[in-house]
Amino acid sequence: MIVIHGTIRIPAENMADARPVMKALVEATRKEDGCIAYTFGEVVGEPGLILIAETWRDGAALGAHFDTPHFTAWREANPELGVSDRNLTVFETSSAKAL
Amino acid sequence: MIVIHGTIRIPAENMADARPVMKALVEATRKEDGCIAYTFGEVVGEPGLILIAETWRDGAALGAHFDTPHFTAWREANPELGVSDRNLTVFETSSAKAL
Repeated sequence: MIVIHGTIRIPAENMADARPVMKALVEATRKEDGCIAYTFGEVVGEPGLILIAETWRDGAALGAHFDTPHFTAWREANPELGVSDRNLTVFETSSAKAL
Repeated sequence: MIVIHGTIRIPAENMADARPVMKALVEATRKEDGCIAYTFGEVVGEPGLILIAETWRDGAALGAHFDTPHFTAWREANPELGVSDRNLTVFETSSAKAL
């Protein structure tokens, strides 16, 4: 499995515009083959900092995600939304269990 | 490394009380030895759903976290805040790279 987490930054004044765009991305992504988890959250106490957590079956599923129309739409919307400071880490793992 | 992510639920009407409690937990936890990342976010479009993402150096560091006063205080505050639906996955990984 591939696990990804980290943050991006969006100017707080753009968040009202960004929320429906993020929600559409998340909803479409969760329907993809090989998407196990995909969630965006607004970091508590840090307006405009967005926490992203993803789990994918494998690298092929993640690679296919980058080519989807909804991911392309998201990336194309990034400049207008002012997305910056992309800071995401990718982990490869074969071990997953409930905490 | 140990990577954790998933969600908990807090009644939306309790979020105003919960935010400073979560912020205090996060700030204290980030100072712990072996804590690489520790972030709480409010899931976009799902009021009261909290996304949690953590990275720990190893299981010993995570184990020590559970015994800290700030984590104990958080767990003790959980019933009053109405924390429920704890759904966290623990991944063991030796591979981390920037996306």
